Amino acid sequence: MRIAVDAMGGDFAPQNVVAGAIGALRSNGKITRLFLVGDTARVDAELKKLNYSDPRLQIVHASEVIAMDDPPVQAVRRKKDSSMCRAIELVKRGEADAIVSAGNTGALLTAAHLKLRTLEGVERPGLACLIPAPENVFVLMDVGANLEPSPAILVQYAVMGSLYSQQILGYRTPRVGVFSIGTEEMKGNELTLETYRRLKQTNLNFIGNVDGHDLFSNVAEVIVTDAFVGNAVLKTCESALRVMSRWLKDELRKNPLRMFGALLAKGAFQALRRKADPDEYGGAVLLGINGICIKAHGASSAKAVQSAIRVATEFVESHFNDRIVEEIKRSNAQLPQAQTPAAQPPLPATA
Amino acid sequence: MRIAVDAMGGDFAPQNVVAGAIGALRSNGKITRLFLVGDTARVDAELKKLNYSDPRLQIVHASEVIAMDDPPVQAVRRKKDSSMCRAIELVKRGEADAIVSAGNTGALLTAAHLKLRTLEGVERPGLACLIPAPENVFVLMDVGANLEPSPAILVQYAVMGSLYSQQILGYRTPRVGVFSIGTEEMKGNELTLETYRRLKQTNLNFIGNVDGHDLFSNVAEVIVTDAFVGNAVLKTCESALRVMSRWLKDELRKNPLRMFGALLAKGAFQALRRKADPDEYGGAVLLGINGICIKAHGASSAKAVQSAIRVATEFVESHFNDRIVEEIKRSNAQLPQAQTPAAQPPLPATA
Repeated sequence: MRIAVDAMGGDFAPQNVVAGAIGALRSNGKITRLFLVGDTARVDAELKKLNYSDPRLQIVHASEVIAMDDPPVQAVRRKKDSSMCRAIELVKRGEADAIVSAGNTGALLTAAHLKLRTLEGVERPGLACLIPAPENVFVLMDVGANLEPSPAILVQYAVMGSLYSQQILGYRTPRVGVFSIGTEEMKGNELTLETYRRLKQTNLNFIGNVDGHDLFSNVAEVIVTDAFVGNAVLKTCESALRVMSRWLKDELRKNPLRMFGALLAKGAFQALRRKADPDEYGGAVLLGINGICIKAHGASSAKAVQSAIRVATEFVESHFNDRIVEEIKRSNAQLPQAQTPAAQPPLPATA
Repeated sequence: MRIAVDAMGGDFAPQNVVAGAIGALRSNGKITRLFLVGDTARVDAELKKLNYSDPRLQIVHASEVIAMDDPPVQAVRRKKDSSMCRAIELVKRGEADAIVSAGNTGALLTAAHLKLRTLEGVERPGLACLIPAPENVFVLMDVGANLEPSPAILVQYAVMGSLYSQQILGYRTPRVGVFSIGTEEMKGNELTLETYRRLKQTNLNFIGNVDGHDLFSNVAEVIVTDAFVGNAVLKTCESALRVMSRWLKDELRKNPLRMFGALLAKGAFQALRRKADPDEYGGAVLLGINGICIKAHGASSAKAVQSAIRVATEFVESHFNDRIVEEIKRSNAQLPQAQTPAAQPPLPATA
C-alpha cells in the first residue's frame, strides 16, 4: 500500500517525520510506496543524515508549508503548493491510499474535507482518538472537527467509532456511550438527550450516558460527543496525567530515601509511562472522508509518526471506508431522518 | 456565626455529616450555632455514638430526605419537610447564615435558587469549585448550575469567581480565563468567542482563553465555562487522577523490589495524595444567591463535611455576598447590556 506523508507538518518537521517514515519502512513490509511530501532539499538532507535510501521512498516536492498557527481555511486556500495539500492530492488522485500529517489540525481537517469530500451517506467527518484505560481502550469522537453537531451526526459518529473499535482494535461488540454530565438517561443537554433517544433505536451496543467519572471504568469502547467537549476531555486527560507525573517526580526528589525508593521501583514508573504514552496510539483519525487521513499530534516524535503510519496501513488494509459506507447506509435506513450533506465544509474546530 | 447543616444529605449521612459537624465545632470557635437538620432520632443516635454534646448544637427535625437520585425539581416541590429544604429555610428566615449539604446537587441548586433567590443584579447563580494545581489553586465555574449560559452570565461568573479567589484564597489580582479549545482568541464556539470579547472590556485581569492543556500550568486563577463543560472537566480531572494512582499501585505491587522501593518512597505518595485530596477543598460553592450555600460532594467523609463548614464560615466572615452585589453592580454598569433576571429558576444541570 501507498502512504503519503506530509514531511513538513508538525513542531519537529521534517526531522521527526522523516525519521518516523524510515522507521515505518523498516518495520512494515506492507508499505509498497511512501511519499515524503515537502521541500526536496530539506527532506533529502534528513535522509542523508540518517544515511537511508529505499526504492519504496519517493520525495514529492512542495514549496510551501502550512504553519501550526496559520488560520486553517485561509491557509488551505492560499497555500496551494503546501506539503499538506500536495499530500492530500496524492490520495485524491488515487496515487496514495492514505495521508499522514502532524501539521496544523484545523488545516488538515479543512483540506481533507474539501479535497476528498465525505463518504456516501456521511453527513460530516469526525476526528476520532484512542484513549487507553486500565481495562480497555476507547474511541473518543469527535475531538476536533465539529463544534456543533446535530444528534444525527453523533449517531453517525457512533457507527463509525464502533467500526473503528471492531476493525482496528478487535472489540467484537464495542459498547457505545454518549458523553454527558451524569449516567442517568435524563441527565444532559438538548444534544445529548436527543442523541440518547436515537442511539437507543439503532442496533449498536448502546449503553447510555458516560460521564467524566466513568471514563476509565471500562464502561464503553466508543464515546461520542461534540468537538468542544471532546477536545476539553482529551486535553484535560493529558494534562491531568502530566501534572500528576510532575508532582510525583517533585515529591520523589525531595530526599535521598525517596530517591532510592523511586530507583528501586523504576520499572513501575516506566511501565505506566508506556501505557499512557500517546506516541503508541498513532494519533487521531479523521473518519467519514473519502480517503484515509491520520493526524499525528503536533509535537510528534519519530515514534509517534511511525505509529501514525502503522495506523494508516491498518485502516487501508481493512478496507475501512467500504465498511463505513455499508454501515452508514444501514444506519441511515434505520433512522427516519433527512440526510442533507453540507454543501460547504464548515470551519473546523481546532487548528 | 450560625450554620445550617443538612444532616441527611450525602451517601454516608447522617454518620459522616454529624461527625464532620462535630469536627467543625471542635476546631472552629467562630461558630456560635450549628443546626443539624434531619431525623431527630437518627441524628441523636449519631451524637450519642460519638458521645458529643455542645450547647451550640441544635437539632432541627425534618421528616423527609431528598435521595441522591431523586429528580431535583419534583423532589424540592414535593418533599417540603426534607432536611435540605428545612435547612435552606433557616437561612431564608435569617436564623442561619449559611447552609451546607452533601446531598443531591440538582435539588440543592434548585431549592437554594427557588427559596433564597439571586442577589441583586445577578442573572443566574453558578456553582464554583476549587482545583489544586502545582503552582496555584484555581476556581472553575460553572460546574453544575447552568447548562446553557449566555456570555453575560459567564461575565458575571468571572466577576464572582474573581471575588472568590481574592476574598477566600487571597489572590490579589486573580487572572481570569475562558475555557476553550485553544488559547488563541479566534478559537472557540459562539459562547466563548462572545464571552472573550466582553471580558476584554471589563476591568478584570482577563488573560484570554485557557484550554485543557493549560489547566494546570499556572495561567489563571479563575476559569469560566458552561456547566456541561465544567462538569466534564472537573470529573475528567478526578477520574484521570484516580486511574493514574490505581495504575501506579498495580505496577508497584508487581514484584518485591518495586514494593520495597514504594515503601521507601511512601512519603512522596502520601504528600501527593494530600495535595490532590478533594476533601481538603471543602466542596463547591453556589455563588450569586441570597445566602451562603456550600455543596460538599456526595461521598463526603467527615473531614470533607468539616472542610465544607469551614468554607461556609469563611464566606460568611468576609461578607462575601455584599461584595458580590457591589462588584456585579459595577460590572453591569460597565457592560452595556440588558440584565433580565429569569423569572423562574431553570432546571439545574446536575443532580
